[in-house]
Order: sequence, then C-alpha cells, then structure tokens
Amino acid sequence: MDNSNLPHHISQQFDAELERLRSQVFAMGGLVEEQVKKAITALTEGDTALADEVTTGDIQVNAMEVDIDEECTHIIARRQPTASDLRLVIAVIKTITDLERMGDQAEKVARIGRELAEMERPRNGYIEIQSLGTHVQNMLRGALDAFVRMDAEAAVKIAKMDLQADHEYEAIIRQNMTFMMEDPRTIKRVLGATWAARALERIGDHAKNVCEYVIYLVKGKDVRHTTLEQLEKEATEG
Amino acid sequence: MDNSNLPHHISQQFDAELERLRSQVFAMGGLVEEQVKKAITALTEGDTALADEVTTGDIQVNAMEVDIDEECTHIIARRQPTASDLRLVIAVIKTITDLERMGDQAEKVARIGRELAEMERPRNGYIEIQSLGTHVQNMLRGALDAFVRMDAEAAVKIAKMDLQADHEYEAIIRQNMTFMMEDPRTIKRVLGATWAARALERIGDHAKNVCEYVIYLVKGKDVRHTTLEQLEKEATEG
Repeated sequence: MDNSNLPHHISQQFDAELERLRSQVFAMGGLVEEQVKKAITALTEGDTALADEVTTGDIQVNAMEVDIDEECTHIIARRQPTASDLRLVIAVIKTITDLERMGDQAEKVARIGRELAEMERPRNGYIEIQSLGTHVQNMLRGALDAFVRMDAEAAVKIAKMDLQADHEYEAIIRQNMTFMMEDPRTIKRVLGATWAARALERIGDHAKNVCEYVIYLVKGKDVRHTTLEQLEKEATEG
Repeated sequence: MDNSNLPHHISQQFDAELERLRSQVFAMGGLVEEQVKKAITALTEGDTALADEVTTGDIQVNAMEVDIDEECTHIIARRQPTASDLRLVIAVIKTITDLERMGDQAEKVARIGRELAEMERPRNGYIEIQSLGTHVQNMLRGALDAFVRMDAEAAVKIAKMDLQADHEYEAIIRQNMTFMMEDPRTIKRVLGATWAARALERIGDHAKNVCEYVIYLVKGKDVRHTTLEQLEKEATEG
C-alpha cells in the first residue's frame, strides 16, 4: 500500500497499529465486495447454494466490524491520538458501520435471490440488476481504494457515480411498472427484483458515504459540507 | 434530563462536558425533527415558502454536525475517555452523521414539494405521504428520547417500528403503480411522490440506526449483532 499521504510517527509501533487498522478495513471491505458479488450472481443465476454462502458470510462481516471497532477503541484509549490520527480512527469507525450495512444489503439480495429462484426466470435474465450491481460494485471497490490511499480526488469521483446508481434504480422502477402492467402474473417476481434493486442502490449510497469520510479526513472539517453541497449541486443540475 | 443511567465522574467538569454534548445532540435532533415536519407539510400542502425554509434550515443542520463533531474530537483529545465514556462519544459521532443525513432527506422532500406544488393536487392530498411521514417522525422522536435517556429497551421498540415504515413504503409503491396505470398523465407527479416516500422511509432507517447505537452503548459490543439479528429475525418472521 502507498503510505505517502499518511503522517509518520516517532513511535514506529503506533505507525504499525494504524497500518494494521487500515489493512483490517481493507480486508473487511474485500469480504463485503465478495458478498455483494456473490449475492448478485445468486439472484441473477438463481443459485441458492451461493445465496446460502452469503448468509453465512454475513456473520463474518459482523464479527469483523466488532473486532475493528474494538481495535479503534483500544487505539484511542492507548495512544490518545489527536488531529489527523484521531480523524483517521473516527473515519475507520464510520466506514466499518457502512461496510457492515452493505453486508446486510448483500444478505437481503441473497435472500430475495432464494425466493426468485423458485419462480420462472425473466427472459432478460435480470440484466438490469446485473448492470446496477456491477455499477455499485465498482463504486465499492473505488471507495475502498480511495480510503486506503487517502485520495480525496478519487473519492469525489466515486461519490459522483452515485448519481448514475440513482438513475439506474429509478429506471428499474419505471421499467418494472411496465412489466407488471403488461403481465400482472409477474407482479410478485417483479416486486422482488425491485427490492433487490433498492438494496443495491443503497450499497451505492454507503459507498458514497465512505467517500465522504475520505474527503473529510483529507480536507478537514471546513470544506466537508461545501464539497458535498457542490457535489450535490452538480448532481442535481446534471 | 434524567441522568440516572449515566456514569458520574470525579471531574465535575467532565460530567458537565458530556452533559453539554448530549444537550447538543438533542438540540440538533430537535432541529432535524422540525425540518422533517416542515418538509412534509410543504409537500402535502404545496407550501413553497415552507419548502424554502427547509432548504435554509439544512445549512444550520450541517453547521451543528460540524460543531458537535469538533466538540467530540476535543473531548477525546482533552479527556482521553475510556470504556463507557468513549463509547458515548463514539455513539454521538455516529448519531450526528445519521441526523445530518435525515436533514438531507428532509431537504429532498422539500425540493420535491416545490416541484409538486406546480402540478395538480391529488384528491387524497398525499395522505399516504402524511401517514408515512408521521410514522417516521414518531420514530425520530422516539430514537432521540431513547438516546438521551440511554434507554436500550425503548431503542429496541423504536427500531422495530422500522418494519412498518418499510411496509408503508412498499404499499405506496404498489398504490402509485395503480395510479399511473389508471391515468398515465399523473406519472410525473406520482413518481415525485414516490421519491418523497423513499426519502421518508430512509429517515426511518436512520432513526433505526440511532437506536442501534443506543443498544450498543448500553449493552456493549457482545450483544450488538445478536440483538440486531434477533430484531431482524422477528421483523422477517413478523
């Protein structure tokens, strides 16, 4: 990992602890990525065994959040970090909350996948879920990269991707309404796909949240809302 | 405020600081409540002046988050809190993040309200938005009360209310689909109402998040996911 944007301490031990903390977040993020990917495949391919794996995997995601949370508490108590170190630890605490919730959403997608597996498959093979899913997976990956590299510019770029996630989600709702009108027998299945899309869209939101922490961490408090409001403004006007 | 559930310190000054912190969170929460209430009225009554007030008010919500965040950082740096005090400060940091996002959602409802004000009103006066809005307002109020009183039992009760918010939101989507099928000329207006409902449902989610922090704060890490999974289980099986 590239450490050039991180402060260095006289205590090499403290440096090692912070490095370890970042690695733990990256590992947790990697697991959540895996969960999201599996959940989407489970749904689009009707693979119930994979859906079960996601349910089991969520327990590990939860356990990682508890471990990292505890590690953060220990670091604060032991090292009494200030300024940017403290901000880093706080950003980690916030980030893992969002990662854990992404895990919950992945679990939800897997659960819906199990239900849909018992119904007739749509001709398009849930292509719209696949597309939104790929998009939010890219956001998650990008947010984690921005976090590990403390790259505020990349974080702004990824945060902006949430606009497309919102648009795709809204398009899915519109399209699904048409499907249901055309063939009311599909209503149960189409609603299931709609809730799965909602879960994916929310994963995009959480990825955006992680980007906001990176911006806060790198730029400090003063520009936080300014930057986000600028982002929001551009998003609204886009 | 009832302090009986909070630890007391030899340093009265520290006690006063923590008390002040709780009051700040309560004040911020009160402002967000006000914002949510105004936004719902702005939308259901087509009151664009009120919608403008919400937009202006959001700047104050953001400023309060920054202030409290800074206060938390100072307390950690100055007091080096451990155990339950540190957990309290961390819970405050997480809570204000959710409060700020509720403010953003209120602002979104107000913005949609401005758009809908220029269109024909539905005969039912957006009664379904009013109903979901009242429900999530009650959740927000309950979550803040549980937070200030550090009442985990109340927090579990409020968190469970999110199930009804989800059901109401899903019912709104179904109903709105029917409306659009019956009269395609209403599509733009009905979609606007759908996105407003989504913003309100998300406010319910954030209120539930605050409840989770209270549970974590009072019960400690070990029961956190257990309690939440039990909640989730009951919610799914309900």
